[in-house]
Parts: sequence; C-alpha cells; structure tokens
Amino acid sequence: MTSILVLTGSPSAASRTAALLGHLADRWRSDGHDVHSIAVRNLPAEALLSADATHPEITTVTEAIAAADGIVVASPVYKAAYSGVLKVLLDLLPQYAFAGKTVLPLATGGTSAHVLAIDYAMRPVLNSLGAHHIVQGYFVLDRLITVTADGVALDEHAERELTAIVDEFSMVIHRDDRLITAS
Amino acid sequence: MTSILVLTGSPSAASRTAALLGHLADRWRSDGHDVHSIAVRNLPAEALLSADATHPEITTVTEAIAAADGIVVASPVYKAAYSGVLKVLLDLLPQYAFAGKTVLPLATGGTSAHVLAIDYAMRPVLNSLGAHHIVQGYFVLDRLITVTADGVALDEHAERELTAIVDEFSMVIHRDDRLITAS
Amino acid sequence: MTSILVLTGSPSAASRTAALLGHLADRWRSDGHDVHSIAVRNLPAEALLSADATHPEITTVTEAIAAADGIVVASPVYKAAYSGVLKVLLDLLPQYAFAGKTVLPLATGGTSAHVLAIDYAMRPVLNSLGAHHIVQGYFVLDRLITVTADGVALDEHAERELTAIVDEFSMVIHRDDRLITAS
Amino acid sequence: MTSILVLTGSPSAASRTAALLGHLADRWRSDGHDVHSIAVRNLPAEALLSADATHPEITTVTEAIAAADGIVVASPVYKAAYSGVLKVLLDLLPQYAFAGKTVLPLATGGTSAHVLAIDYAMRPVLNSLGAHHIVQGYFVLDRLITVTADGVALDEHAERELTAIVDEFSMVIHRDDRLITAS
Repeated sequence: MTSILVLTGSPSAASRTAALLGHLADRWRSDGHDVHSIAVRNLPAEALLSADATHPEITTVTEAIAAADGIVVASPVYKAAYSGVLKVLLDLLPQYAFAGKTVLPLATGGTSAHVLAIDYAMRPVLNSLGAHHIVQGYFVLDRLITVTADGVALDEHAERELTAIVDEFSMVIHRDDRLITAS
Repeated sequence: MTSILVLTGSPSAASRTAALLGHLADRWRSDGHDVHSIAVRNLPAEALLSADATHPEITTVTEAIAAADGIVVASPVYKAAYSGVLKVLLDLLPQYAFAGKTVLPLATGGTSAHVLAIDYAMRPVLNSLGAHHIVQGYFVLDRLITVTADGVALDEHAERELTAIVDEFSMVIHRDDRLITAS
Repeated sequence: MTSILVLTGSPSAASRTAALLGHLADRWRSDGHDVHSIAVRNLPAEALLSADATHPEITTVTEAIAAADGIVVASPVYKAAYSGVLKVLLDLLPQYAFAGKTVLPLATGGTSAHVLAIDYAMRPVLNSLGAHHIVQGYFVLDRLITVTADGVALDEHAERELTAIVDEFSMVIHRDDRLITAS
Repeated sequence: MTSILVLTGSPSAASRTAALLGHLADRWRSDGHDVHSIAVRNLPAEALLSADATHPEITTVTEAIAAADGIVVASPVYKAAYSGVLKVLLDLLPQYAFAGKTVLPLATGGTSAHVLAIDYAMRPVLNSLGAHHIVQGYFVLDRLITVTADGVALDEHAERELTAIVDEFSMVIHRDDRLITAS
C-alpha cells in the first residue's frame, strides 16, 4: 500500500484549506492510499520559530515525510506567496527531504491574480528539497469552497479540474510503486 | 530626522545575519538616521503561528513599520528562499504596510548559488506589501562574515559593495525626506 | 525636460499592448515629458536572434535608453512570463543599461491568472539591468482594452488604476529631475 | 525506441551550450534513445519575431515536439533568466505543447550566482506548457566547459553531477515508455 502525507500551512484551524484537504484525503483513501495529515499550526510554535529540528514532534514529522510515497503541500496564498507557517516547517527539514517523493502543490486564495504563486514561489522551494516529481498543482479560489456540516462543497467546474489533478497524482504514485515492486 | 526599521528573520539569536545588521545599524546612526531593530524570533511564537494580528507585540511592530521611513528586510536563505520566520511576520501585516516606504532587501547564505533568491523570492513579497521603492539589495556569503568580540568583520570586497548599497538606501531616504519637508 | 522611452515587446503591430501604450504616451506628453517609442518587432530580426549588439539599429536603441530618464517596459504575457520578443532586446543591452533609470513595467494578458508575471518574471530581469527605481507596475486584461478609430478605450476601473500608476511614474521622474537640477 | 528532442536557445553557433548539448546527445544515443536537435537561432528570424506559428519550419518544430518522449530545454542565462532566443520559440508553441512529456532544463552561465534562474525562471514557463514531469535540472558554469577538437571536455565534478542528472532523465523516459508499452 502506498502512503500520502498531507502538510497544510494555514494558520487557522477552521480554514477552507483544511476543509478542502479533508475532502481530498477521503478520495485518496477510497483510492487505496494510506493518508496522514499534519497541520503545521498544531506543531510546537517555539520549536518552529527557533528552528529546533531536534524537537520530538518535529522529528516525528521528518520521519513521516521519509516514510511517505507522496507529499501534498497545501498553503493559502498570503502576500503573493506561500504562508510563512508552511515555510517554517520546510526550513527545518533535511536538505533533500523530498528525494524520491512525488509532490502535489495546492494553494487557496482570495483572487485568481495569485494563481502563479504555485509555480513561481512554491515549486522552487519544493524543488530545492530534492523532489523527484512535482506534478501539476492547483489553485482554488476561496469563494468556490463552501464548508458544510459534513465536509466541503466545491464549485462544480473547480471540482472537476481538481479531481483530474488529484487523480493524476494518485496514478503517478501507484505507477512508481508498481515499478519499484516489480524491479 | 528620518527613521529606519530593521526586520530580521533569522531563527537564531547568534546568527551572522543579526551581527551584520548590528554593524549596518551603527553606520546608519552615524549617518543621522534613527534606527530600530526587530528580530522576529523574539516576538510571541504562538501569535505568529496563529496569525494573531491583534496581539499587543504584533500591533507594536505594525506601528513601528508605519512610523518608519525606511525598512530593512533581512533573512538567511533557506530552501532557495527567505526564511519562514520572516514570512510569518510579513503575513500578519496590513495589505499595504510598506506603502510610501523605501525598502532594502538583504540576505545571507552559505552558497552564492542562492543570490537570486532576493530578486525572485523576496522582492515579489515586498512589492505585494505596496513598497514605494525597493532599492538594489545585497547577498552576503556566510563565510565572508566573521563575528568578533566587538561586532562583525566583513571580507574587504563585500564590505565595499555592501557600503555602496547601504549608502544608496540612506541617500534615497534622505532625499525623499527633504522633498516631503520642502513641499 | 525629462524624457521617457517606451519599449514594447508585442510580436504584433496591431496589438492591444501597442494601442494602450500610444494612449499612455499622449498622457505623458501632456504632462511635459518628451516621449519616444520603440517596438522590438520593428528592429532587424536577424540582429536580434544572433545577439548582434553592434548593428546600427541596435546601438541606436542602446543610446536612446542611455538618454532617457524613464523607461516603460511593456509586454504581453505568454507562457506565464514576458514575451521572448521583449527579452531578445533586453539580452543585447549592456549589463547595467538601466542604471540611474526609473522603470515602469506594464503587461497585458488574457487572464488575471497571469498578474504575478510582472513581479516574478519581469522585475528580476529589469533589476538585473541595474534599474534605480522600478515603480509599481500594472497588468491590463486584454478584454478591458477596446481599440477605437482614434486610439483606445479602457474599462473605467482599469483606466483609473492605470492613471494612478502612470502618474506616480511621471511624478518620480519629475522629482528626481528637480533634485539633479538642484544639486 | 524512445525519442529525445534537444532545444537550444543560444544566439551563437559556437556556444559552449551547443558543444555541451552535442556531448550529451552522444550519451543519450548510446543509451538507446533516438536524439534530434533544434537550435532556435537556425529557425527563420522573421517568423519568430512576428510570432508566425504557421511558417513551415515552425510547424516542423511543433511536430517534432509532439513526436518526442523527452524534451531537453537548454539556454544560456542572460539578465538573470533564460535567453529571449529560447523564449520566442516557446511563445509560438500550442498552449499544452509539453503535455505528456518528460522535460530536462539545462542552463549555462558565467557565474554561479545565476543557478536559481532554472527553478525561478525556466521551470514556471515549462510548467505552463503542461509538462508531465520536469526532472531536476542542471546549471553548468561556462569556465568548466572546454570546447575541444573532437567535442567538449567538462570539469570532472561537473561531469559526474551532470551524468547523474541526464541518466535520471533517461531512466524516467525509459520507465514511462515501458509502462505505456505494457498497458
């Protein structure tokens, strides 16, 4: 079984980013992946701000990343880039923490004017972590996400596009897994 | 008198970035500027990680930015970009917090391969904050900075280049100040 | 009198980018600036593609840049960045061709998803040319520009925002000119 | 048999970029790939500058891209980014010309200060062309490349690193080819 780790960089527990990622996790589980999620805002704040990579909760994250086949990196767009909350965690990881991993970048934001933040801001950082394959990412406008009692409802067109993106990510992980198993 | 605010995004108190900025602050003071410094790592970690812009220590920073003529934004380069520690603070600022300000971007790093992080990563974020004038920035290699008992010693060539950069920044602030006073 | 040079990187003579820049040139002229325009697509194609900086028409451009106080750099957004047509000219310029210049970046495009191409793609290049001051730029959606018999009509909101941007650029050039004259 | 298309964006026929790519083409051929090369500077200059995608030599390039499994995109770094010569060709391609392709970005330059141009400038453009998988790229310092009578000699350390990069690219193309053949 392949495993996916979801890292979310929203400073808010009740964020649309978080609700959206819960929705996608269900999809990947029904696709046969083992899915774990880490919200950076729940990690110890002092350890993150002082770059303490030896803190037990941080080493747990590093081990979870090492164990995963696929990594989803999700962030709201603030000030034309990924959130600082996401970046304080990435800064603490070993230099090539994403070596051998398939990575899916996702972003949410209030205006479509921020779409390119994925390719110009997030990808260079994910690439510097040695990612094997960063698949096409996706940007979801906040107003297309409705948080409901039992999860999240997405605008129909965005749902269709996002489904194609997450299925491609899922396919790439399965494919690489089969190859490794076969060889 | 014009005022300069120095924001540093290093997670370490004993960093070369911090020592270097202390060195530059002395220069600006002898140039007639009023200089204040804020190290993000000394601000309340929980407030930063949960994006609490109403925390008293955060509003103090916002007011200090509003009161400054020039802002120095300094960060080590981690994972091919500015530090997350710097970005968690920038994320909390009002949308156009740098409107009307002259801004100097500075970075330190272990390899000259990271020089472009200033122009491709820092500047777009500083620009999204509405900066009036982002002057040419400077990247200092860690190994050219020696922390000494009474401050910092810089490689001679780097010292000369950096001096030209910080004097240009100082000149622009003085010039804009004279114009505003005159008009 | 201060002078402004407009460089346009559209591959088409009948482009919205060209019409828009003609409209702005009129405004700057009535503001008291001397305005010249160069469309890269009218320069000798062979010289541009073989990087022949000694071709007489190219040296004329280099001299026009050296003589200008302000430079407007305008491009359609193609493939998430400035046009190659613009870049072949910029590649031929001396390393610090924009030293001492005030620069205004403008872009046009079919979707607001490309807005960040100005800050993440154009600005780093303009900055590498040593620009003294790159003012806030502006992105205009193609569909907000209507080419008319006697020029161009712009959507009212875009017109207002763009006017603020070009007036700021005009003000900065005038201000720096007064300072140089005074000193 | 899988096929690789090499696109080079140097304005000079005698460039180190060209010599280096010839060297790599030999390696891929001995690896069992069919290799074709296109130097943008040999394409019709007028067609490129006026964005004439219907010119027969341009449609030949578009068809060669459609037929290739892997695309190598190589450029010197000028003004902190890829060359305009490369970009005028990319601008002419259909929106998703790189869909389903594995892409290898390579750059050469005079200073290691330009290394990040691959990740911050080239990759966003390659990604906007819909590339399936952009593998880790490589930046070669001009002075590490010696053009010899029978090809090119590379600094030993750079040769070793570059070999790892191009073998990874070769492996990914072979792997995807086997999967497609098997399914």
